[in-house]
Amino acid sequence: MTDFTPTERTQVHRLPKRGVYDREVVYRILDEGLVCHVGFIADGKPVVIPTGYGRKGETLYIHGSNASRMFRTLGKGAEICVTVTLIDGMVLARSAFHHSMNYRSVVIFGKATVLESLDSKREALGVFVEHVMKGRWDDVRQPTESELKATTVLAIPLEEISAKVRTGPPIDDEEDYALNVWAGVLPFEPTPGAPIADDRLPKEIAVPQYMRTYTRKQR
Amino acid sequence: MTDFTPTERTQVHRLPKRGVYDREVVYRILDEGLVCHVGFIADGKPVVIPTGYGRKGETLYIHGSNASRMFRTLGKGAEICVTVTLIDGMVLARSAFHHSMNYRSVVIFGKATVLESLDSKREALGVFVEHVMKGRWDDVRQPTESELKATTVLAIPLEEISAKVRTGPPIDDEEDYALNVWAGVLPFEPTPGAPIADDRLPKEIAVPQYMRTYTRKQR
Repeated sequence: MTDFTPTERTQVHRLPKRGVYDREVVYRILDEGLVCHVGFIADGKPVVIPTGYGRKGETLYIHGSNASRMFRTLGKGAEICVTVTLIDGMVLARSAFHHSMNYRSVVIFGKATVLESLDSKREALGVFVEHVMKGRWDDVRQPTESELKATTVLAIPLEEISAKVRTGPPIDDEEDYALNVWAGVLPFEPTPGAPIADDRLPKEIAVPQYMRTYTRKQR
Repeated sequence: MTDFTPTERTQVHRLPKRGVYDREVVYRILDEGLVCHVGFIADGKPVVIPTGYGRKGETLYIHGSNASRMFRTLGKGAEICVTVTLIDGMVLARSAFHHSMNYRSVVIFGKATVLESLDSKREALGVFVEHVMKGRWDDVRQPTESELKATTVLAIPLEEISAKVRTGPPIDDEEDYALNVWAGVLPFEPTPGAPIADDRLPKEIAVPQYMRTYTRKQR
């Protein structure tokens, strides 16, 4: 895979060591995340809205109701910024100043295009469902024509992208290492709890295998 | 506490039942979150960047290096949108179309002001550290004057805000309840793992109590 070429917007200036343009790293972050934050301009002012997404190849898909202002604005080709952030841990330094977080984030710039055909929308809905839970799509009732018509799906090309990654222990000032303060990392992982069956679910329907082995981690 | 009054920007139009303007609910979401996504306009285009934050009373603080473009832009009084999102679970419906997420999100609009005095910056740094981990501030080496001078702290008034909340089971179309598909919620909670001590930490420094009982949950 060809890596991303930094542009003026995606060049990481602050702490450039954290900048990543490796396509495989970027895709792993996107595949592990659950929601993205979509930035756009409405009435000359910035707006940031969280939403689900899915990735297939070199395209990111987001979807929403035809009635949504965000999707109407973006469907007209407005500039968009999509950011996905994973928090991997808190970095606890000996000084207040050097506290930090271990994280992986991806920032995508571009313009979205609207998927028009029902087939392409159906395929994108499959990408969304499989993004949330691999194995789920074949289990569930497929979208009808009217459901597809009520949904706006936007495709965003994965072209102008950067990622930032921080890993590892705190970096303290040399003289602070002698302080009597616990220092290290408190790791975080998005951990699913026990499934809560719908009240109306018949008792004989078991929790599916793909849910019992569920993890966001990418191999 | 007085609740927030919806403005044109914060009025929730899509799925208005999910709109929340209750100050206590909004603050609980902000206090539980770890990172916010900051939206601003650079060269006429939207940019969304994740960063840590802290809240004290009716003010949200974010901070960064003086060298950061984002902080220089926002420090000049540019319009800002700050969004905090908590993912509480995946909502697994019987149909692909009704899949959803349980989430709580807060969207803040406004303009930031720069904290000028060292005392106000020191106080804000305390808010950040305590936001990440309650009890930590008194344990760590306090910021020096030069550290405070190297840090830009922005204050954002918590005035123009809305929250959206989805909870509960999937809502399927009536005829789909008869389908032989597992349906319900897979809950998510940000769960800390076991603390990883810094390699250079002396063995006799124990994990502090405030870390052993750590949770993001607000009472």
